[in-house]
Amino acid sequence: MLSKNQIKLINSLNKKKHRLEHGLFVTEGVKVIKEFLKSSFTLRALYSVADIFHIEEGESHIVSEKELGKISNLKTPQTALAVFEIPKSLPLQATSPLSLALDGIRDPGNLGTIIRMCDWFGIEQLICSQDTVDCYNPKVVQATMGSLVRVKITYTDLNSFLSTSSAYTYGAYMTGTNVYTTDLETENAIIVLGNEANGISTAVQPHIDERISIPSYGKSQGAESLNVAMAGAILLSEFKRR
Amino acid sequence: MLSKNQIKLINSLNKKKHRLEHGLFVTEGVKVIKEFLKSSFTLRALYSVADIFHIEEGESHIVSEKELGKISNLKTPQTALAVFEIPKSLPLQATSPLSLALDGIRDPGNLGTIIRMCDWFGIEQLICSQDTVDCYNPKVVQATMGSLVRVKITYTDLNSFLSTSSAYTYGAYMTGTNVYTTDLETENAIIVLGNEANGISTAVQPHIDERISIPSYGKSQGAESLNVAMAGAILLSEFKRR
Repeated sequence: MLSKNQIKLINSLNKKKHRLEHGLFVTEGVKVIKEFLKSSFTLRALYSVADIFHIEEGESHIVSEKELGKISNLKTPQTALAVFEIPKSLPLQATSPLSLALDGIRDPGNLGTIIRMCDWFGIEQLICSQDTVDCYNPKVVQATMGSLVRVKITYTDLNSFLSTSSAYTYGAYMTGTNVYTTDLETENAIIVLGNEANGISTAVQPHIDERISIPSYGKSQGAESLNVAMAGAILLSEFKRR
Repeated sequence: MLSKNQIKLINSLNKKKHRLEHGLFVTEGVKVIKEFLKSSFTLRALYSVADIFHIEEGESHIVSEKELGKISNLKTPQTALAVFEIPKSLPLQATSPLSLALDGIRDPGNLGTIIRMCDWFGIEQLICSQDTVDCYNPKVVQATMGSLVRVKITYTDLNSFLSTSSAYTYGAYMTGTNVYTTDLETENAIIVLGNEANGISTAVQPHIDERISIPSYGKSQGAESLNVAMAGAILLSEFKRR
Protein backbone atom coordinates (compact mmCIF):
# COMPACT_ATOMS: atom_id res chain seq x y z
CA MET A 1 0.00 0.00 0.00
CA LEU A 2 1.44 3.32 -1.09
CA SER A 3 1.10 6.28 1.26
CA LYS A 4 0.01 9.69 -0.02
CA ASN A 5 3.43 11.01 0.94
CA GLN A 6 5.23 8.38 -1.11
CA ILE A 7 3.07 9.17 -4.16
CA LYS A 8 3.61 12.88 -3.68
CA LEU A 9 7.39 12.51 -3.34
CA ILE A 10 7.72 10.29 -6.42
CA ASN A 11 5.53 12.54 -8.56
CA SER A 12 7.50 15.59 -7.42
CA LEU A 13 10.65 14.02 -8.95
CA ASN A 14 9.30 14.95 -12.39
CA LYS A 15 10.61 18.43 -11.66
CA LYS A 16 14.32 19.19 -11.69
CA LYS A 17 13.95 21.44 -8.64
CA HIS A 18 12.60 18.56 -6.56
CA ARG A 19 15.12 16.07 -7.95
CA LEU A 20 17.93 18.38 -6.79
CA GLU A 21 16.23 19.03 -3.44
CA HIS A 22 15.89 15.29 -2.69
CA GLY A 23 18.90 14.07 -4.68
CA LEU A 24 16.69 11.38 -6.23
CA PHE A 25 15.42 10.33 -9.66
CA VAL A 26 12.97 7.78 -11.04
CA THR A 27 13.50 4.98 -13.53
CA GLU A 28 10.95 2.48 -14.86
CA GLY A 29 10.96 -0.97 -16.40
CA VAL A 30 12.48 -4.25 -15.19
CA LYS A 31 15.35 -4.39 -17.70
CA VAL A 32 16.59 -0.87 -17.05
CA ILE A 33 16.14 -1.14 -13.27
CA LYS A 34 18.27 -4.32 -13.32
CA GLU A 35 21.04 -2.39 -15.08
CA PHE A 36 20.94 0.30 -12.38
CA LEU A 37 20.90 -2.35 -9.60
CA LYS A 38 24.06 -3.96 -11.04
CA SER A 39 25.78 -0.56 -11.26
CA SER A 40 27.25 1.80 -8.67
CA PHE A 41 23.95 3.72 -8.35
CA THR A 42 22.34 3.54 -4.89
CA LEU A 43 18.76 2.31 -4.70
CA ARG A 44 16.40 4.28 -2.49
CA ALA A 45 13.14 2.41 -3.11
CA LEU A 46 11.67 -0.15 -5.45
CA TYR A 47 7.99 -0.52 -6.39
CA SER A 48 6.88 -3.55 -8.40
CA VAL A 49 3.72 -5.56 -9.02
CA ALA A 50 5.51 -8.78 -8.04
CA ASP A 51 8.75 -9.78 -6.30
CA ILE A 52 10.82 -9.59 -9.48
CA PHE A 53 14.19 -8.41 -8.24
CA HIS A 54 14.96 -10.35 -5.04
CA ILE A 55 17.13 -7.55 -3.75
CA GLU A 56 19.01 -8.08 -0.50
CA GLU A 57 19.38 -4.47 0.51
CA GLY A 58 17.13 -1.45 0.19
CA GLU A 59 13.47 -0.68 0.51
CA SER A 60 11.15 -2.79 -1.67
CA HIS A 61 7.35 -2.59 -2.05
CA ILE A 62 4.87 -4.82 -3.81
CA VAL A 63 2.14 -2.57 -5.22
CA SER A 64 -0.98 -3.02 -7.34
CA GLU A 65 -1.04 -2.04 -11.00
CA LYS A 66 -3.38 0.79 -10.09
CA GLU A 67 -0.92 2.08 -7.50
CA LEU A 68 1.93 1.84 -9.99
CA GLY A 69 -0.17 3.91 -12.40
CA LYS A 70 -0.29 6.69 -9.79
CA ILE A 71 3.51 7.00 -9.59
CA SER A 72 4.41 6.16 -13.20
CA ASN A 73 5.40 8.75 -15.82
CA LEU A 74 4.47 6.41 -18.65
CA LYS A 75 1.15 6.21 -20.46
CA THR A 76 1.39 2.43 -20.21
CA PRO A 77 3.19 1.78 -16.92
CA GLN A 78 5.76 -1.00 -16.79
CA THR A 79 5.65 -3.57 -13.99
CA ALA A 80 8.24 -1.80 -11.85
CA LEU A 81 9.48 1.65 -10.88
CA ALA A 82 12.58 2.49 -8.86
CA VAL A 83 13.90 5.56 -7.10
CA PHE A 84 17.69 5.93 -7.15
CA GLU A 85 20.05 8.50 -5.66
CA ILE A 86 21.59 11.03 -8.04
CA PRO A 87 25.34 10.34 -7.86
CA LYS A 88 27.84 13.05 -6.98
CA SER A 89 29.13 14.80 -10.08
CA LEU A 90 32.65 13.58 -10.87
CA PRO A 91 35.34 16.11 -11.73
CA LEU A 92 36.00 16.50 -15.46
CA GLN A 93 39.13 14.84 -16.78
CA ALA A 94 41.62 17.37 -18.11
CA THR A 95 42.25 15.13 -21.11
CA SER A 96 40.24 12.34 -22.62
CA PRO A 97 40.73 10.67 -26.00
CA LEU A 98 37.46 12.06 -27.34
CA SER A 99 34.72 13.90 -25.46
CA LEU A 100 31.32 15.14 -26.54
CA ALA A 101 30.00 18.51 -25.31
CA LEU A 102 26.39 19.67 -25.53
CA ASP A 103 25.61 23.37 -25.73
CA GLY A 104 21.96 23.83 -24.75
CA ILE A 105 20.27 20.61 -25.91
CA ARG A 106 16.67 20.98 -24.76
CA ASP A 107 14.79 17.92 -25.98
CA PRO A 108 14.84 14.99 -23.49
CA GLY A 109 14.55 12.45 -26.33
CA ASN A 110 17.59 13.92 -28.07
CA LEU A 111 19.66 13.86 -24.86
CA GLY A 112 18.59 10.27 -24.18
CA THR A 113 19.58 9.20 -27.69
CA ILE A 114 22.91 11.02 -27.40
CA ILE A 115 23.71 9.28 -24.10
CA ARG A 116 22.91 5.90 -25.70
CA MET A 117 25.19 6.76 -28.60
CA CYS A 118 28.04 7.77 -26.23
CA ASP A 119 27.67 4.34 -24.64
CA TRP A 120 27.86 2.66 -28.06
CA PHE A 121 30.91 4.61 -29.18
CA GLY A 122 32.68 4.43 -25.82
CA ILE A 123 32.75 8.18 -25.21
CA GLU A 124 34.25 8.57 -21.75
CA GLN A 125 32.80 11.92 -20.84
CA LEU A 126 29.74 13.85 -21.89
CA ILE A 127 30.00 17.50 -20.92
CA CYS A 128 26.70 19.41 -20.76
CA SER A 129 26.15 23.17 -20.53
CA GLN A 130 24.05 24.24 -17.55
CA ASP A 131 21.08 24.93 -19.85
CA THR A 132 21.10 21.43 -21.33
CA VAL A 133 18.10 19.38 -20.21
CA ASP A 134 18.74 17.45 -16.96
CA CYS A 135 19.89 13.87 -17.59
CA TYR A 136 17.78 12.67 -14.64
CA ASN A 137 14.60 13.98 -16.28
CA PRO A 138 12.34 10.87 -16.45
CA LYS A 139 12.01 11.14 -20.25
CA VAL A 140 15.78 11.21 -20.61
CA VAL A 141 16.24 8.28 -18.23
CA GLN A 142 13.73 6.20 -20.22
CA ALA A 143 15.27 7.13 -23.58
CA THR A 144 18.77 6.10 -22.47
CA MET A 145 17.71 2.44 -22.11
CA GLY A 146 20.22 1.92 -19.28
CA SER A 147 23.17 3.70 -20.90
CA LEU A 148 23.06 6.28 -18.09
CA VAL A 149 24.78 3.63 -15.99
CA ARG A 150 27.88 3.64 -18.20
CA VAL A 151 28.29 7.21 -19.50
CA LYS A 152 29.93 9.84 -17.29
CA ILE A 153 27.93 13.06 -17.53
CA THR A 154 28.98 16.40 -16.08
CA TYR A 155 27.05 19.69 -16.11
CA THR A 156 29.30 22.70 -16.13
CA ASP A 157 29.78 26.22 -17.47
CA LEU A 158 30.78 25.13 -20.98
CA ASN A 159 32.32 28.48 -21.81
CA SER A 160 34.68 28.36 -18.79
CA PHE A 161 35.47 24.69 -19.30
CA LEU A 162 36.42 25.14 -22.95
CA SER A 163 38.51 28.22 -22.21
CA THR A 164 40.76 26.16 -19.90
CA SER A 165 40.77 22.97 -21.98
CA SER A 166 43.79 22.04 -24.10
CA ALA A 167 41.71 19.74 -26.31
CA TYR A 168 41.22 20.49 -30.00
CA THR A 169 37.59 21.59 -30.21
CA TYR A 170 35.32 20.78 -33.14
CA GLY A 171 31.92 22.42 -33.56
CA ALA A 172 29.08 20.88 -35.60
CA TYR A 173 27.82 23.52 -38.03
CA MET A 174 25.67 23.59 -41.15
CA THR A 175 28.65 24.97 -43.04
CA GLY A 176 32.18 23.94 -42.19
CA THR A 177 34.93 21.55 -43.22
CA ASN A 178 33.57 18.37 -44.80
CA VAL A 179 33.95 15.85 -41.97
CA TYR A 180 34.44 12.98 -44.44
CA THR A 181 37.51 14.42 -46.08
CA THR A 182 39.29 16.48 -43.44
CA ASP A 183 41.98 15.15 -41.12
CA LEU A 184 40.51 14.63 -37.69
CA GLU A 185 42.21 14.83 -34.33
CA THR A 186 40.86 11.78 -32.55
CA GLU A 187 42.95 12.12 -29.38
CA ASN A 188 42.44 14.91 -26.85
CA ALA A 189 39.55 16.27 -28.90
CA ILE A 190 36.06 17.55 -28.12
CA ILE A 191 33.05 17.64 -30.43
CA VAL A 192 30.48 20.33 -29.55
CA LEU A 193 26.83 19.93 -30.58
CA GLY A 194 24.60 23.00 -30.33
CA ASN A 195 21.00 23.73 -29.47
CA GLU A 196 18.27 22.23 -31.69
CA ALA A 197 17.04 25.60 -32.98
CA ASN A 198 19.96 27.99 -32.54
CA GLY A 199 23.08 25.83 -32.82
CA ILE A 200 26.23 26.63 -30.87
CA SER A 201 25.86 29.71 -28.65
CA THR A 202 27.76 32.93 -29.22
CA ALA A 203 29.51 32.44 -25.85
CA VAL A 204 30.89 29.06 -26.92
CA GLN A 205 31.73 29.94 -30.54
CA PRO A 206 35.13 31.59 -29.83
CA HIS A 207 36.37 28.30 -28.33
CA ILE A 208 35.71 26.30 -31.50
CA ASP A 209 38.99 25.47 -33.25
CA GLU A 210 37.34 24.01 -36.35
CA ARG A 211 33.85 24.01 -37.78
CA ILE A 212 32.86 20.67 -39.25
CA SER A 213 29.76 19.69 -41.18
CA ILE A 214 28.12 16.64 -42.72
CA PRO A 215 27.61 17.20 -46.45
CA SER A 216 24.04 16.92 -47.73
CA TYR A 217 23.49 14.73 -50.77
CA GLY A 218 19.86 15.76 -51.20
CA LYS A 219 18.70 17.59 -54.30
CA SER A 220 16.91 20.29 -52.42
CA GLN A 221 18.53 23.19 -50.69
CA GLY A 222 15.35 23.33 -48.66
CA ALA A 223 16.36 20.22 -46.73
CA GLU A 224 16.17 20.87 -43.03
CA SER A 225 19.27 20.27 -40.99
CA LEU A 226 19.72 16.80 -39.60
CA ASN A 227 18.32 16.25 -36.14
CA VAL A 228 21.09 16.96 -33.58
CA ALA A 229 21.17 13.38 -32.30
CA MET A 230 21.53 12.05 -35.85
CA ALA A 231 24.26 14.56 -36.67
CA GLY A 232 26.01 13.53 -33.45
CA ALA A 233 25.76 9.84 -34.38
CA ILE A 234 27.27 10.46 -37.81
CA LEU A 235 30.09 12.60 -36.40
CA LEU A 236 31.00 10.12 -33.65
CA SER A 237 30.90 7.30 -36.21
CA GLU A 238 33.27 9.29 -38.41
CA PHE A 239 35.73 10.01 -35.57
CA LYS A 240 35.68 6.40 -34.34
CA ARG A 241 36.14 4.74 -37.73
CA ARG A 242 39.43 6.59 -38.44
CA MET B 1 -16.39 29.05 -37.77
CA LEU B 2 -15.68 25.33 -37.90
CA SER B 3 -18.64 22.98 -38.36
CA LYS B 4 -18.98 19.84 -36.27
CA ASN B 5 -18.54 17.80 -39.44
CA GLN B 6 -15.27 19.51 -40.30
CA ILE B 7 -13.93 18.88 -36.79
CA LYS B 8 -15.08 15.27 -36.92
CA LEU B 9 -13.49 14.66 -40.33
CA ILE B 10 -10.14 16.21 -39.36
CA ASN B 11 -9.97 14.32 -36.08
CA SER B 12 -10.82 11.08 -37.86
CA LEU B 13 -7.65 11.48 -39.96
CA ASN B 14 -5.65 10.44 -36.89
CA LYS B 15 -6.59 6.90 -37.82
CA LYS B 16 -5.02 5.16 -40.84
CA LYS B 17 -8.37 3.59 -41.74
CA HIS B 18 -9.97 7.01 -42.14
CA ARG B 19 -6.95 8.49 -43.93
CA LEU B 20 -7.23 5.73 -46.53
CA GLU B 21 -11.02 6.08 -46.73
CA HIS B 22 -10.81 9.84 -47.41
CA GLY B 23 -7.38 9.89 -49.10
CA LEU B 24 -6.39 12.79 -46.85
CA PHE B 25 -3.82 13.60 -44.19
CA VAL B 26 -3.10 16.46 -41.80
CA THR B 27 -0.01 18.60 -41.38
CA GLU B 28 0.58 21.45 -38.93
CA GLY B 29 2.80 24.49 -38.66
CA VAL B 30 3.40 27.38 -41.07
CA LYS B 31 6.88 26.37 -42.20
CA VAL B 32 5.97 22.78 -43.05
CA ILE B 33 2.65 23.75 -44.68
CA LYS B 34 4.55 26.19 -46.92
CA GLU B 35 6.80 23.34 -48.06
CA PHE B 36 3.76 21.25 -48.96
CA LEU B 37 2.12 24.20 -50.77
CA LYS B 38 5.23 24.66 -52.93
CA SER B 39 5.30 20.92 -53.75
CA SER B 40 3.17 18.68 -55.96
CA PHE B 41 0.84 17.82 -53.06
CA THR B 42 -2.78 18.95 -53.52
CA LEU B 43 -4.27 21.11 -50.78
CA ARG B 44 -7.77 20.21 -49.63
CA ALA B 45 -8.26 22.76 -46.85
CA LEU B 46 -6.29 25.21 -44.81
CA TYR B 47 -7.11 26.42 -41.28
CA SER B 48 -5.13 29.26 -39.77
CA VAL B 49 -5.54 31.91 -37.10
CA ALA B 50 -4.66 34.66 -39.60
CA ASP B 51 -4.34 35.02 -43.38
CA ILE B 52 -0.74 33.80 -43.44
CA PHE B 53 -0.53 31.95 -46.75
CA HIS B 54 -2.35 34.10 -49.34
CA ILE B 55 -3.18 31.03 -51.41
CA GLU B 56 -4.90 31.56 -54.74
CA GLU B 57 -6.55 28.18 -55.04
CA GLY B 58 -8.16 25.85 -52.51
CA GLU B 59 -10.32 26.16 -49.46
CA SER B 60 -9.00 28.44 -46.71
CA HIS B 61 -10.52 29.22 -43.31
CA ILE B 62 -9.59 31.71 -40.65
CA VAL B 63 -10.27 30.09 -37.27
CA SER B 64 -9.84 31.05 -33.63
CA GLU B 65 -7.05 29.57 -31.52
CA LYS B 66 -9.69 27.66 -29.61
CA GLU B 67 -11.06 26.15 -32.80
CA LEU B 68 -7.56 25.24 -33.96
CA GLY B 69 -7.08 23.46 -30.63
CA LYS B 70 -10.06 21.27 -31.44
CA ILE B 71 -8.55 19.96 -34.68
CA SER B 72 -4.86 19.98 -33.71
CA ASN B 73 -2.90 16.84 -32.79
CA LEU B 74 -0.33 18.87 -30.91
CA LYS B 75 -0.28 19.66 -27.20
CA THR B 76 0.64 23.21 -28.12
CA PRO B 77 -1.12 23.88 -31.43
CA GLN B 78 0.71 25.85 -34.09
CA THR B 79 -1.00 28.77 -35.84
CA ALA B 80 -2.06 26.72 -38.86
CA LEU B 81 -3.24 23.25 -39.88
CA ALA B 82 -3.71 21.94 -43.40
CA VAL B 83 -5.41 18.95 -44.95
CA PHE B 84 -3.69 17.57 -48.07
CA GLU B 85 -4.54 14.73 -50.42
CA ILE B 86 -2.49 11.54 -50.10
CA PRO B 87 -0.71 11.22 -53.47
CA LYS B 88 -1.05 8.08 -55.58
CA SER B 89 1.70 5.61 -54.80
CA LEU B 90 4.34 5.71 -57.54
CA PRO B 91 5.63 2.43 -59.00
CA LEU B 92 8.97 1.33 -57.57
CA GLN B 93 12.00 1.87 -59.76
CA ALA B 94 13.63 -1.41 -60.79
CA THR B 95 17.04 0.09 -60.13
CA SER B 96 18.11 3.04 -58.11
CA PRO B 97 21.63 4.00 -57.03
CA LEU B 98 20.87 3.34 -53.37
CA SER B 99 17.52 2.61 -51.75
CA LEU B 100 16.51 2.16 -48.15
CA ALA B 101 13.96 -0.50 -47.14
CA LEU B 102 12.15 -0.67 -43.80
CA ASP B 103 10.94 -3.99 -42.47
CA GLY B 104 8.31 -3.33 -39.82
CA ILE B 105 9.36 0.02 -38.32
CA ARG B 106 6.62 0.81 -35.79
CA ASP B 107 7.61 4.03 -34.07
CA PRO B 108 6.32 7.19 -35.83
CA GLY B 109 9.24 9.24 -34.51
CA ASN B 110 11.73 6.75 -35.96
CA LEU B 111 10.03 6.76 -39.36
CA GLY B 112 9.90 10.57 -39.38
CA THR B 113 13.60 10.78 -38.56
CA ILE B 114 14.44 8.19 -41.24
CA ILE B 115 12.49 10.15 -43.88
CA ARG B 116 14.36 13.32 -42.89
CA MET B 117 17.64 11.44 -43.19
CA CYS B 118 16.71 10.10 -46.67
CA ASP B 119 16.12 13.70 -47.70
CA TRP B 120 19.54 14.71 -46.37
CA PHE B 121 21.38 11.85 -48.06
CA GLY B 122 19.42 12.09 -51.32
CA ILE B 123 17.93 8.58 -51.12
CA GLU B 124 15.58 8.36 -54.10
CA GLN B 125 13.24 5.72 -52.83
CA LEU B 126 12.20 4.53 -49.39
CA ILE B 127 10.51 1.12 -49.56
CA CYS B 128 8.33 0.23 -46.57
CA SER B 129 6.86 -3.15 -45.63
CA GLN B 130 3.08 -3.13 -45.24
CA ASP B 131 3.46 -3.37 -41.44
CA THR B 132 5.67 -0.28 -41.23
CA VAL B 133 3.89 2.66 -39.60
CA ASP B 134 1.97 4.83 -42.10
CA CYS B 135 4.00 7.82 -43.31
CA TYR B 136 0.85 9.99 -43.21
CA ASN B 137 0.39 9.32 -39.50
CA PRO B 138 0.31 12.86 -37.98
CA LYS B 139 3.27 12.09 -35.70
CA VAL B 140 5.34 10.98 -38.69
CA VAL B 141 4.34 14.01 -40.75
CA GLN B 142 5.40 16.34 -37.90
CA ALA B 143 8.70 14.52 -37.36
CA THR B 144 9.68 14.76 -41.04
CA MET B 145 9.86 18.58 -40.90
CA GLY B 146 8.78 18.82 -44.53
CA SER B 147 11.05 16.09 -45.93
CA LEU B 148 7.94 14.10 -46.89
CA VAL B 149 7.68 16.49 -49.83
CA ARG B 150 10.96 15.30 -51.31
CA VAL B 151 11.29 11.60 -50.44
CA LYS B 152 9.47 9.01 -52.55
CA ILE B 153 7.89 6.44 -50.24
CA THR B 154 6.24 3.21 -51.36
CA TYR B 155 4.48 0.60 -49.21
CA THR B 156 4.74 -2.90 -50.62
CA ASP B 157 5.15 -6.57 -49.79
CA LEU B 158 8.86 -6.34 -49.00
CA ASN B 159 9.39 -10.06 -49.36
CA SER B 160 7.98 -10.12 -52.92
CA PHE B 161 9.75 -6.92 -53.88
CA LEU B 162 13.16 -8.17 -52.75
CA SER B 163 12.68 -11.55 -54.43
CA THR B 164 12.33 -9.82 -57.82
CA SER B 165 14.95 -7.11 -57.24
CA SER B 166 18.38 -7.36 -58.84
CA ALA B 167 19.89 -4.95 -56.32
CA TYR B 168 22.58 -6.11 -53.89
CA THR B 169 20.78 -6.21 -50.55
CA TYR B 170 22.42 -5.30 -47.25
CA GLY B 171 20.76 -6.01 -43.92
CA ALA B 172 21.57 -4.11 -40.70
CA TYR B 173 22.32 -6.65 -37.98
CA MET B 174 23.92 -6.61 -34.55
CA THR B 175 26.55 -9.03 -35.87
CA GLY B 176 27.73 -8.87 -39.45
CA THR B 177 30.54 -7.50 -41.61
CA ASN B 178 32.10 -4.35 -40.13
CA VAL B 179 30.56 -1.61 -42.30
CA TYR B 180 33.64 0.61 -41.88
CA THR B 181 36.09 -1.86 -43.40
CA THR B 182 34.12 -3.88 -45.96
CA ASP B 183 33.78 -2.99 -49.63
CA LEU B 184 30.34 -1.54 -50.24
CA GLU B 185 28.24 -1.68 -53.37
CA THR B 186 26.94 1.87 -53.60
CA GLU B 187 25.12 1.48 -56.95
CA ASN B 188 21.99 -0.65 -57.39
CA ALA B 189 22.02 -1.48 -53.69
CA ILE B 190 19.40 -1.64 -50.95
CA ILE B 191 19.92 -1.28 -47.21
CA VAL B 192 17.26 -3.02 -45.08
CA LEU B 193 16.55 -1.83 -41.54
CA GLY B 194 14.47 -4.12 -39.31
CA ASN B 195 11.87 -3.70 -36.61
CA GLU B 196 12.87 -1.88 -33.39
CA ALA B 197 12.48 -4.96 -31.17
CA ASN B 198 12.83 -7.96 -33.49
CA GLY B 199 15.09 -6.79 -36.30
CA ILE B 200 14.69 -8.08 -39.85
CA SER B 201 11.82 -10.56 -40.19
CA THR B 202 12.33 -14.23 -41.02
CA ALA B 203 10.44 -13.70 -44.30
CA VAL B 204 12.89 -11.02 -45.45
CA GLN B 205 16.10 -12.65 -44.14
CA PRO B 206 16.64 -14.99 -47.13
CA HIS B 207 16.84 -11.97 -49.45
CA ILE B 208 19.74 -10.39 -47.56
CA ASP B 209 22.96 -10.76 -49.55
CA GLU B 210 25.19 -9.41 -46.81
CA ARG B 211 24.77 -8.69 -43.12
CA ILE B 212 26.46 -5.48 -42.03
CA SER B 213 26.92 -4.01 -38.58
CA ILE B 214 28.27 -0.92 -36.88
CA PRO B 215 31.01 -1.90 -34.44
CA SER B 216 30.51 -0.86 -30.83
CA TYR B 217 33.41 0.89 -29.14
CA GLY B 218 31.82 0.83 -25.69
CA LYS B 219 33.40 -1.08 -22.82
CA SER B 220 30.25 -2.88 -21.85
CA GLN B 221 28.75 -5.82 -23.65
CA GLY B 222 25.52 -4.78 -21.97
CA ALA B 223 25.21 -1.81 -24.32
CA GLU B 224 21.82 -1.80 -25.97
CA SER B 225 21.71 -1.72 -29.73
CA LEU B 226 21.68 1.68 -31.36
CA ASN B 227 18.25 3.10 -32.07
CA VAL B 228 17.20 2.07 -35.60
CA ALA B 229 17.11 5.66 -36.88
CA MET B 230 20.63 6.27 -35.57
CA ALA B 231 21.92 3.03 -37.06
CA GLY B 232 20.31 4.05 -40.36
CA ALA B 233 21.96 7.48 -40.23
CA ILE B 234 25.39 5.96 -39.64
CA LEU B 235 24.94 3.38 -42.42
CA LEU B 236 23.72 5.93 -44.98
CA SER B 237 26.58 8.23 -44.02
CA GLU B 238 29.01 5.37 -44.59
CA PHE B 239 27.56 4.47 -48.01
CA LYS B 240 27.47 8.09 -49.15
CA ARG B 241 31.00 9.02 -48.05
CA ARG B 242 32.60 6.25 -50.16
